[in-house]
Amino acid sequence: MKSRSFFDQLAHAQKRNESLLCIGLDPDLALLPAPFSRRNAADVARFNTAIIAATADLACCYKPNWAFYEAMGLEGMRALEKTIAAVPPGIPLIADAKRGDIGNTAKAYARSIFEVWGAAAVTVNPYMGLDTLEPFLEYSDRGVYVLCLTSNPGAEDFETRGSLYLRVARALAERDSGNIGLVVGATQPRRIRKVREAAPRLPFLLPGLGTQGGSAEAAVRGASGPRPGSVVVNVSRSVLYASKGKDFAEAARAAADDFRKTLNAVQTHGTGAR
Amino acid sequence: MKSRSFFDQLAHAQKRNESLLCIGLDPDLALLPAPFSRRNAADVARFNTAIIAATADLACCYKPNWAFYEAMGLEGMRALEKTIAAVPPGIPLIADAKRGDIGNTAKAYARSIFEVWGAAAVTVNPYMGLDTLEPFLEYSDRGVYVLCLTSNPGAEDFETRGSLYLRVARALAERDSGNIGLVVGATQPRRIRKVREAAPRLPFLLPGLGTQGGSAEAAVRGASGPRPGSVVVNVSRSVLYASKGKDFAEAARAAADDFRKTLNAVQTHGTGAR
Repeated sequence: MKSRSFFDQLAHAQKRNESLLCIGLDPDLALLPAPFSRRNAADVARFNTAIIAATADLACCYKPNWAFYEAMGLEGMRALEKTIAAVPPGIPLIADAKRGDIGNTAKAYARSIFEVWGAAAVTVNPYMGLDTLEPFLEYSDRGVYVLCLTSNPGAEDFETRGSLYLRVARALAERDSGNIGLVVGATQPRRIRKVREAAPRLPFLLPGLGTQGGSAEAAVRGASGPRPGSVVVNVSRSVLYASKGKDFAEAARAAADDFRKTLNAVQTHGTGAR
Repeated sequence: MKSRSFFDQLAHAQKRNESLLCIGLDPDLALLPAPFSRRNAADVARFNTAIIAATADLACCYKPNWAFYEAMGLEGMRALEKTIAAVPPGIPLIADAKRGDIGNTAKAYARSIFEVWGAAAVTVNPYMGLDTLEPFLEYSDRGVYVLCLTSNPGAEDFETRGSLYLRVARALAERDSGNIGLVVGATQPRRIRKVREAAPRLPFLLPGLGTQGGSAEAAVRGASGPRPGSVVVNVSRSVLYASKGKDFAEAARAAADDFRKTLNAVQTHGTGAR
């Protein structure tokens, strides 16, 4: 498994499950459904396990965001361990950790994400420059999604000024080591297309669909690229918390299937890219 | 303690220990001195405890970088717990975690760093915009050092292009909530002065002295500002690994004292800012 590249694993899972949907495993204790009334780290592990079991044939990958586990201390990291163990073989896991640091420190982060946690891919922050990404890129069988354009209002503060996000896209397109992807918010159709022009061959991970209001059509059409695994669209809360009741798993499954079909419809009718 | 601001705590420790020196607790298993031959997380905790005991009257703060602990898995996080517990009251701890994420996710990171770990301050990444920093800034008694200009070669890729680092400095100077600082690499004297012009009142944390070759004089002179705790200079490896033998703690103490005196000499003769 490990010798195969992340993007090949991803494309394989996308084909098998006919899905571009990534499910973000972002446990918010306040939003856990009724059956998880203790609202602790053990509940999070049980909740995630149930969500994964209910959706594993509908998603192409899972993406836990480290923050939510770290917020629960060491117990939270044990919940993360159990969550990772619950993901079936063949479905890759993206560590949404947004790490970024220099030299030896970046090496230590890469070791943590890829060796300690065994993630298939990671999200990283480009602010400090390309040399800070190299220790991640050295893991040629893992995927490295670099933050480019995000879906929050603050993206206007630095990312879009002077088109920083396009400079990031171009720099990564030039560095292209075969295992680089870009994080591009699904909420900004026009800019998704600009990033695609700046980095014609890099795969995109698009968060922001669902609660954040991004359009599936704009995301998939604007992002489609030539490589396997070119487009992954992440949904978190709209799937996880589709119901607050005992039927949470069925509701999550139904929501995931809706997103999956919506994305596939756009893909089939709109782009012909795959 | 908690009700006092971080920068007041820092200034108090600086005055008491007559020191602008921050010691970076960045344990590299390959570099641990001879007495720590198991080179595991337990050794790291013992090593850090010895370093802290040998230097606590010479430093104004300690700065563990989370990466090195995360690279050792859950055992590493236990070593971090023990390290934090070994820092005496009155010496604030900066969590060098360089976190950055949106909305609820940033809140979760802030909770982790400030509530789970109890750090007095944190380093954060501004790429995604000011809204991603707000959850940290809400902890008004804690310090938030925002990455501005770093000491690695890759700083030329994005930070200095279009003067992004100065736009970051100006944006944070404008947001100034009394608990914001900037991370400014000690290796670039001319640019330190530019950041000081862009953010006349914000305190600086300056890494890059020692192994990375920054000049103490340039750092302190260029960085001096009007507020208490305006200048903190971090040294990691040159103190931690001053000797690889049994005398590692004495050697670390001697190295720390050298740095402390060098910084004080610049401060006294060069700037008169404090």
